[in-house]
Formats: sequence, C-alpha cells, structure tokens
Amino acid sequence: MREVAIIGVGLTRFGERWEHGLRDLMAEAGLNALNDANISSDDIEMLYGGVMASGRFVGQEHIAALLADQLGFKNIPAVRVENACASGGTALRQGYITVASGIHDIVAVGGVEKMTDVTTSEATTALGGAGDQEWELAQGITFPGLYALMAKRHMHDYGTTEEQMAAVAVKNHKNAVKNKYAQFHKEITMEEVLRSKMVADPLKVFDCSPISDGAAAIILAPLEMAKKFNDTPIKILASTQATDSLSLAERESITGLRATQIAAEKAFSQAKLKPKDINLVEVHDCFTIAEILAIEDLGFYRKGKAAKATADGETALNSKLSVNTSGGLKGCGHPVGATGVKQAVEIAMQLRGEAGERQVSGAEIGMTHNVGGSGATAVVHIMKRIN
Amino acid sequence: MREVAIIGVGLTRFGERWEHGLRDLMAEAGLNALNDANISSDDIEMLYGGVMASGRFVGQEHIAALLADQLGFKNIPAVRVENACASGGTALRQGYITVASGIHDIVAVGGVEKMTDVTTSEATTALGGAGDQEWELAQGITFPGLYALMAKRHMHDYGTTEEQMAAVAVKNHKNAVKNKYAQFHKEITMEEVLRSKMVADPLKVFDCSPISDGAAAIILAPLEMAKKFNDTPIKILASTQATDSLSLAERESITGLRATQIAAEKAFSQAKLKPKDINLVEVHDCFTIAEILAIEDLGFYRKGKAAKATADGETALNSKLSVNTSGGLKGCGHPVGATGVKQAVEIAMQLRGEAGERQVSGAEIGMTHNVGGSGATAVVHIMKRIN
Repeated sequence: MREVAIIGVGLTRFGERWEHGLRDLMAEAGLNALNDANISSDDIEMLYGGVMASGRFVGQEHIAALLADQLGFKNIPAVRVENACASGGTALRQGYITVASGIHDIVAVGGVEKMTDVTTSEATTALGGAGDQEWELAQGITFPGLYALMAKRHMHDYGTTEEQMAAVAVKNHKNAVKNKYAQFHKEITMEEVLRSKMVADPLKVFDCSPISDGAAAIILAPLEMAKKFNDTPIKILASTQATDSLSLAERESITGLRATQIAAEKAFSQAKLKPKDINLVEVHDCFTIAEILAIEDLGFYRKGKAAKATADGETALNSKLSVNTSGGLKGCGHPVGATGVKQAVEIAMQLRGEAGERQVSGAEIGMTHNVGGSGATAVVHIMKRIN
Repeated sequence: MREVAIIGVGLTRFGERWEHGLRDLMAEAGLNALNDANISSDDIEMLYGGVMASGRFVGQEHIAALLADQLGFKNIPAVRVENACASGGTALRQGYITVASGIHDIVAVGGVEKMTDVTTSEATTALGGAGDQEWELAQGITFPGLYALMAKRHMHDYGTTEEQMAAVAVKNHKNAVKNKYAQFHKEITMEEVLRSKMVADPLKVFDCSPISDGAAAIILAPLEMAKKFNDTPIKILASTQATDSLSLAERESITGLRATQIAAEKAFSQAKLKPKDINLVEVHDCFTIAEILAIEDLGFYRKGKAAKATADGETALNSKLSVNTSGGLKGCGHPVGATGVKQAVEIAMQLRGEAGERQVSGAEIGMTHNVGGSGATAVVHIMKRIN
C-alpha cells in the first residue's frame, strides 16, 4: 500500500447559487483544483464524485460520467458514491484507497449538491432518504426531529442547555465571516439563536444548517510523486469509515454516534496519534447538537463535557481546539454531497497556511469528520503538512 | 497489488416481486452469497452496494449502511456506488480495487433495484436520469428513443435488419427458460417480436428489457486466501472501466460505444488475452441492438458483422460464443443496480460448472460487460476458473 497526499484543492462559493446549475458548480470547483495542483485534465486517471440525491434534486443520476465529461477527463473511469451527507467524505476515502492500491496514480475527488431548484418541502423529503424511509420517515419524522431526539436525551442525561448548543451556531457564524466561500457572512448573537423560530424542540432555525448549492474538489497522488506537482502536499495519515443502523430505535444509545466513535478509534490507531495531537478539526455540525456529539465521540471531550467547553470558548478559532474554522455546515453551508470534500479542503488550506483571517497558528495536524444521516455512516480523515 | 477471487455468489429471482421490498431482496441475495462462501456476516470487512435510483423508486438513499445493518455486518465501512445501469459492475470493480489494495480482505459486493413500486411512467422518468437530463431527456427523448437512434444508424450504415435484432430477443428468452432466477420463462418467436407493439421505431416491446425487481451479491477475497473458503474460487483476471459523454450528440459515432471499446481493450491487455480466448460473455442487452453493438465493441465481431452472426445462431448457447446464457437483461430481467453483479454471478456459476441446463461445456474463461445509460459508462470484467 502506497502513502497518499492531497496535491490540489478547489471550491465554489457555497450558498443559494440560483444562476448556476449542477454541472457549472462541479466544473468551477474541479478547474480550481486542477489549477491549484498545476496539472491538466489529461493527467487525471480516475474520478470519484460524491453526491447525495441529485436524482431527486435535479433529475440527474450518472453524475460521475457527467462530471468527467464536463471537466474534459475523457474516457477515464468515474464513480459516483453516495452515503447520504457523508457522500463527500466517502468519495475522498475511495480516492485514497484507489491511489493506495497502485491501480491509479492521479485521482480527482469531487463533491457537489444543487439543492435550491426544489422547494424546501421537496428538499426535506429528499433528505429524508438518508434515514430509514420505512421505519422512521414514513412515520412522519424529519431530520431536525431525529436530531432533536438526540438533543433532548443529551440534555436529560448531561444537563446540556439550549444556550450551550446555541454557542456552536454563534462560533461557527463568526468563523464563516472570515471565509469567502461561506454561505453566511453575518455574525449572530446567542439571543438571536434562542429567539429564532422553533423547528423541532429544542432545535430552532439557527441550530440547523441551511439548504445550499456548492461543490468542492481535491486532487490526490501517491506521496512519492506529490512534490512534482506541489510544494506543500498534505499527507493523509488516516482514512477510516464505519456504519451503524439507519434508525435511531435500533441503537443502544442516542447521546453519541457509535459510527463516529469507531471511525475515530481506527483513525487514531492508523495515524498513531491521540486526540491531543490534533490542532484543528472540521466536524459534521448539521445541527448544533451534532457538533457537541462529534467532539465527544471523536475523543476530544468526555461524554457530557463538550457543551460547556464550547460555551466556555474552548473550541473557538485559535483556542484550545479550533473546531469548524470554515464556519462548519452551519455557517459555511451544507450542499450535502460537497460537505465532506469541503471539510478536507479547509484542513488542507489551514495546514498550508493559506486560510487568511481564519488561519490557525501553528496548524500541523488536522482532522475531518463527515456524517451520513443521523449517524449510520461516519468518515474520518487525519492529515498532516509534510513540508 | 494483490490478486482477487470470487469466493461466493448469491441471487434472488428477478421479476415483479410485489411481495418483497428493497431490504428483503438485498438480504436474500446477501445471505445466499454468505452461505455459498461458507462464511458468516462477521467475516465481512467492507461492503459496496450498487443501486441506481432508489431515491426515486422507493424514497431511500443511504443504501449501503442500510444493507450492512440488514445483513448484520455491524459497523463496517459501506459504500453505495451509482453509475446508472452500470452501478452493479461499478460496485464489483470497487470491491476488486479494495481487496487488491490490501486495505480489506473479505469484501461483499451487492446490487439491487426495486422498480415496481412506481408506475411505468415514473420508472421511465427515473431511468432518464441515466442520460443527460438537461441536454437530452428534458427535450423529450426516453431511453428506448436513444437506443432507437443507435439502431437506425446501425441499420443505415451496415444493413442490420429488424429480424436480426429480434433474433437477440428470441435467443435470450430461450436461455432464460433454463434459468430459475430469470423473470421470463417463456420462449418467444421471431414473429412475436416483430409483431409486438412499437416503442420507439425500430424497437418494439420485445426488443426492450423489462422493469424488474431483484438483487445479486458476490463475496471477494484475496486469491491467496480464497481456497480457505471455497473449493472453486474464480479469479478476476481483469477489471476495467471507461466513460464517454452522457449525450449522444457529443459523440463521433453512435454505431458503437466508445466506453465499451476502451474498457474492453484495457481488459484484454490486463488479462493478457484476446477475444478468441473467451468462452462465454454476459453483455448489456438493455435493448436488442445493444447486444449487437456490445459483441462488436468488445472485439468478438467486426463492426457491422454481429447482427447477421446472431441471426445465424453463432451466439446461441454452446455455439461459437455463448452470449447471455443467463437470459441477459432481456430474458432474465433488468433490476438496474443488480444487473452488473448478476452478470458476474452467472459467469462464476458457469465457470464452476453449476449452470445446469444452460451449462456452457468446457467454460474456462468468461467476461461481463455492464453499461450505464446510453454508454457513458462501461465496466468490463474477465474471470477464470483456477481449479
């Protein structure tokens, strides 16, 4: 097995991109990544595209071949992967496996979602496909409802408060203001979060990530070739994934995601590192409670301790552990198939020292954490600057 | 890179499976494959699931985690792949890459589609997602229409006749009668095909594969471990894939699929074999013309020669080249995500000498050919009995 490095990254601005379709967004992110890696489309040997529900959002399946054609990667193998909101992280891990295997050298990984061509109600229904359609969604629950159940139980067991959850949203909006790719460039106050409209008790609108359009792309290469293309390659130290039941009812506990815990344990083992070695992490804050669960499940805080730590500012930019410097799903936006790739782009930019106003000082090792649905899939990556 | 073998296979009966849902079908095929490989669910280290449009057919995305949970593969990494009707073949190639890489040893590959829960009109719309939604389908064409264009041009350039195309359907139904997993157990005559209702000139109902429910599963292992599980492992000699533009309008020729030609060239090169070395092949006959294009594009016949050869009986069971012994998509059925995996199951059964009445005598080397949409993806595998 070969070691694998990121040699190029590209993003589109996330947001309500009314003027651009799915293929425009993919092309924009992809071309940015090719330029960043100083390579041409002829150099790409295989493509993975993460997209969750393009069939329902824009009527288009078969996205990988479309993406390859649109970017001029003529006739290469191309594969769409889908693991709900973890489609992007899954695509990155597939690219990692393929480069590690020796079957292909230069592999492009993209993530995209075009969500604003349908109504909010249609989008909610499409996103429901990430949960157990027969056993959960058909009974009337939605995704905010599933995460509200987790939040209520976390509050019950550990005394977590609505203010502490709101602190996640306040922090992530603050970070997003410093990110030109982010959907929201407006700080919000604790009071605004608490006063915002109730979605599913205790989660209010400002506890929820938005519906977004956007794309992200990464170019991977074997580590030994990486320096040919890029002065600052980022080495992937670990790439792991785990699953759990789709439906919450089948789980032993809903105050943590078992898939995250397993993927994290495996990642730290593969990288031969501990949580204290990580300088910054992009976690899957689809709802504010999800960020609290994540930093507990990943091992940064003991169960029940992350909410207070967040409210105390320990996860703010350049504090004890910088969490979601991009603004996270809450502030940067959440085009579902793109998110997992965007998280890795953010970590790569930080490790290269190119994150501008939101730069984490001395960032050497970063982590990403991408979740599908209510935790049936979790994908974790650990990365390191090697130059 | 390690060599890879098939150590277990499983199928459901294909057809209108009103009494079974998506998860039932997946579980049935998966358990059959586990039993066939003499392993338990605890032995599986990773899962790939090929499914095309479950979001639109049954409202369910996130199929891989669902499948893993349903089969008791607790917490393993699981990935859904989608490349339209080539989703199954793509899943098999991803499994092959992963085992070859050394990252995981025992990998399950499944393919499934549950298509009969929606109306035929809804199914046609969902399948349209395999073509270029903006540039083709939104203009009013359907998949039979796209293949009708290819058929018309092939007739114009090479004198191919409607009778010669009908011969594909007659042969494949004849094979399907001998396959207990097939959707159709009824022979049809040339006259019945020619007299059947027109769908898109020159393609009539009996030139088209049906809408089907079904699932197929395969267990992969490193070749050096394969004998531990199974007395008759099947070695994968080649696993290749290529893409082309989604829309026909962008292609230089529509009398052949460039993606198939490229994937086939690479497969013969990887396996160090020539077309004459292949004893039997399962090709993607979504329409009768598609089988004719396929056996030309794969290199078994020169362009323009396959239609007459088929009508002359050269591709019948135990003739010059046994094509679609399972009954193909036309006779066995076409649950789109399952088809590519089912093709490999058929070849494995034939190479193990377990195909009963439809056994190809002396079958040693077989090939599969799985197409996405109107040819934007093609996946080719070559396999050999090693015992």
